[in-house]
Amino acid sequence: MSILVVGSVALDHVETPFGSADGVVGGSAIFFAAAASMLTPVQVVGVVGSDYPMDRLRFLEEQEVDLSGVEIVEGDSFRWKGCYGHDPNDRTTIWTQLGVFEQFKPRLPDHFRDARTVFLGNIDPVLQLDVLEQVRLPKLVVCDTMNFWIDGNREALLEVIGRVHILMVNDAEARQLADESNLLKAARWIQAQGPEWVVVKKGEHGAVLFGSASVFFVPGYPIEEVCDPTGAGDAFAGGFLGYLDWSGSRSRDDFRRAMVYGSALGSYAVEAFSVDRLKNLTPDQVMERIRQFHEITAFELEVGAVRNG
Amino acid sequence: MSILVVGSVALDHVETPFGSADGVVGGSAIFFAAAASMLTPVQVVGVVGSDYPMDRLRFLEEQEVDLSGVEIVEGDSFRWKGCYGHDPNDRTTIWTQLGVFEQFKPRLPDHFRDARTVFLGNIDPVLQLDVLEQVRLPKLVVCDTMNFWIDGNREALLEVIGRVHILMVNDAEARQLADESNLLKAARWIQAQGPEWVVVKKGEHGAVLFGSASVFFVPGYPIEEVCDPTGAGDAFAGGFLGYLDWSGSRSRDDFRRAMVYGSALGSYAVEAFSVDRLKNLTPDQVMERIRQFHEITAFELEVGAVRNG
Repeated sequence: MSILVVGSVALDHVETPFGSADGVVGGSAIFFAAAASMLTPVQVVGVVGSDYPMDRLRFLEEQEVDLSGVEIVEGDSFRWKGCYGHDPNDRTTIWTQLGVFEQFKPRLPDHFRDARTVFLGNIDPVLQLDVLEQVRLPKLVVCDTMNFWIDGNREALLEVIGRVHILMVNDAEARQLADESNLLKAARWIQAQGPEWVVVKKGEHGAVLFGSASVFFVPGYPIEEVCDPTGAGDAFAGGFLGYLDWSGSRSRDDFRRAMVYGSALGSYAVEAFSVDRLKNLTPDQVMERIRQFHEITAFELEVGAVRNG
Repeated sequence: MSILVVGSVALDHVETPFGSADGVVGGSAIFFAAAASMLTPVQVVGVVGSDYPMDRLRFLEEQEVDLSGVEIVEGDSFRWKGCYGHDPNDRTTIWTQLGVFEQFKPRLPDHFRDARTVFLGNIDPVLQLDVLEQVRLPKLVVCDTMNFWIDGNREALLEVIGRVHILMVNDAEARQLADESNLLKAARWIQAQGPEWVVVKKGEHGAVLFGSASVFFVPGYPIEEVCDPTGAGDAFAGGFLGYLDWSGSRSRDDFRRAMVYGSALGSYAVEAFSVDRLKNLTPDQVMERIRQFHEITAFELEVGAVRNG
C-alpha cells in the first residue's frame, strides 16, 4: 500500500521564544510525508521553484517517498514566515510569498493515479477536487483545510468535504465551518455533510476522533521543550493515515490506534525546527511513544464506588 | 471515612448564552459536598448570612453531609455574579459581595477535628492554614487556590502548599504560581514545593494528574449543552477526593480512577444551573459516565506498525 499526498512544499522562516530558523524545509506535504513514511510508502504531489534545495529532501527518498510528482518550475518557491508565543497554540503569520505555488496546477504522474489512500493537504479546495478527479479508485480520502478556505471558497470546500471519508481540522476551524461553538455539535454537522469521521486537532490539548456513534480522545503528549510547533498537524495526519494505510484495516480499534500514531508523530515533530526531529526518528522511538500514550491514558474500571447504588 | 471541606457557601448570580440564574445555591464548599457525598460522608465548614436559604441545602443532609460547621451570622451572605461566553472556559466576574464572608474565621466543631481527609477550598490561604491547625491528624490534604491569592498572598499560600499532599489548580493558575509557561515544568516546580501530586484542571480540555514519576490525562467529557460551568472545578474535586476517601487506597490505579470520578462529577455539574444536576444524580448515572470515560479513551496497544523496525 502507499499514500498519495498533495500539499505545499515550502521554505519556512520561524521565530519562537527559543530560537529561529530561516528558510528551512517545510510545507504540509513534506511534514506529512516525513511522518507517514515511518509507516508506509508515500507519493508527493506539489510544486517548488527553481531555488528549492531538493537535496534536503533526499532523506525522504531513502524512506520510500516518491517525489516524482513534485514539479520544479522556474521562479521562487513558496515561503512562509511565522512566529509563536510561549503558548504553542498561539501562532502569527508574518508574511507569505506564494511564488510558483500561486499558479500550482497539480498533475499526477500516471503511476500515482492508482493510489487508494489520499491525503488532500491544506490547499485551495478547487485544487483538492482536481487531484481527486485524477485518482482512479480512491478508497480512503482525508482532507485538511483552514479558515482562509472556509471563508474564501466555502462552496468548493463543501464539495470536497462531501467526497471525503475523513475531515481533519483544528477546533477553531471545525467551529467556524459548522458555525457552531459546541465541538460535539460542530462535528455532527460536518458528518452530515459527508465524512464518516471527523478528526479535530487541538494542539497541546490533544485530538478528538468523532465516528458515527463514538468519540475517542487522545491527549497532547507532555513535552518540556516545544521547539517549533510548525508542521505538527501535518505530522499528525501523516502518522494517522500512515497507520491506517499500513494496517489496511478500518476497524474501530485501528482508527483509535491511528489517532495515537498521529499524536506520537505530531509530538515528535515539535521537538525541533523543520523536519529535523522526524528525519532522525527511529522506529523504536515511535513505538516507545505509543506505549507512553497508553501509559498516560489507561485506567482500569472498578465496580461500585458510588453509595446507595 | 469522611471528608472535611472548608470553602465558600454562596448565592450565585449567573448569566450564560443559554439562560440565567439569580441568587441560587453555590460556593466551593457546596459544589464539593454535593459531588463528594455521592461517594462518602462530608463535613462542611463555612459561614452564611442570616438571609441564607438553609432549607435549600437539606438535600445535602439527606446525603450524609454534616452542615454543623456552617456558621450562621447576622448579615448578608456571600454573593457572586458572573457571566460566561460561548466558550465555557471564558468567565467574567461582574461583581462580588463578600458580606459575612469578609470576617470569616473558621471554627471546627470538635467532632470535625478528627478528619483524616481534608479539602481546603479556594479561600484566603491564611484561613486554610487556620483550618489545618485545627485538624488533629490529617492524612490526606488537598488544596485549591486562585490567581487572587497567588498574587495577593503568595507567602501564606506557599506555606499551605508546603503542607498539602495534593495541589489542585487550573492550568493558568499552575503557570502563574510557578511563573513557567510549560505545564509539565510548572507542575514539577509545584511538586518541589511540597505536594507529591498536582492536579491541573483544564475545563473542557480535561485534567492532568502529575505524580512523582507519572502523568495521567483525562479528557473533558463531550457535552452538547453546557448549561452553567460554575462549580465544575469544585465538583471535580469532590468526585476526586470522594473516590480516594471511599477507596481508602492511595495506589497509582486509585489516583487514576479518582481523576475519572472527578471528571464525571464535574461534567454532570455543568449540565444545569447551581447544584441542580448533582442534586438529582443517581449512582447508576455516575457509574455510566465512568464507563463512558473508559469508552472514549481506551485503546489497545498493538506491536510493530513501524517500518524498518
